[in-house]
Amino acid sequence: MDQFMQAAIDEARLGLAEGGIPIGSVIVHKGRIIGRGHNRRVQQGSAIRHGEMDAFENAGRQPASVYREAVLYTTLSPCAMCSGAILLYGIPQVIIGENRTFMGEEAWLRERGVTLEVLQDAACVQLMEEFIAARPELWNEDIGE
Amino acid sequence: MDQFMQAAIDEARLGLAEGGIPIGSVIVHKGRIIGRGHNRRVQQGSAIRHGEMDAFENAGRQPASVYREAVLYTTLSPCAMCSGAILLYGIPQVIIGENRTFMGEEAWLRERGVTLEVLQDAACVQLMEEFIAARPELWNEDIGE
Repeated sequence: MDQFMQAAIDEARLGLAEGGIPIGSVIVHKGRIIGRGHNRRVQQGSAIRHGEMDAFENAGRQPASVYREAVLYTTLSPCAMCSGAILLYGIPQVIIGENRTFMGEEAWLRERGVTLEVLQDAACVQLMEEFIAARPELWNEDIGE
Repeated sequence: MDQFMQAAIDEARLGLAEGGIPIGSVIVHKGRIIGRGHNRRVQQGSAIRHGEMDAFENAGRQPASVYREAVLYTTLSPCAMCSGAILLYGIPQVIIGENRTFMGEEAWLRERGVTLEVLQDAACVQLMEEFIAARPELWNEDIGE
């Protein structure tokens, strides 16, 4: 397992342990994690702190030059909001844990020139399958359904 | 002036008075503002608190049924991130103060069935023109440039 996807999975598990939705993300620049985060809908009553958004927020204000050399890792295919943030900041590469339990805006990202890699990682799939089975209403809320 | 666009402009001016980027937004449900906000990049060192995102966050966790009957007002054409949030939550209608100083993802929103109205409001244009002239580097940072 890539160390950065492992860090994203660690974030997802941390979120689950806090009673939250198990999705994690890290942003990597020149081989170093500059921001890490996980979904905080439950923990902070937040409508915008998806895992990727939390990683962006925790990375702080960065110059465009940093985002444009960064790689974003996320345990789950990024939704429209998180994909929009990826495009806003010009992140060129996104590594996705899995897209079996949720398909985000991958077509849009590719169309705009973002390089995507989908790992279909078993641990990522299991985290979401178990969570969706246990808390379907919470999961639906998180994806606006 | 529509009372809700006026409220969004009031938010933008509040942000400016705080030393921030003058963009404001309100989310309206059944004729009542359920969330209001403004860009907090400077005030909170935030990469994700655009005006619209701040309004979503301040509205708190809402059921899909509320978002789907809501109208979002924003003083400026929504960027990719904010447009993504609008689509994630299925907001059907967006009223935009202006798109002269920045054109966001209006084509994407329309393509996905969101009804947009662009007011080209003089006060909104003036707020952004003056701000961009005074703080171009801060504005560029906010749009990932």
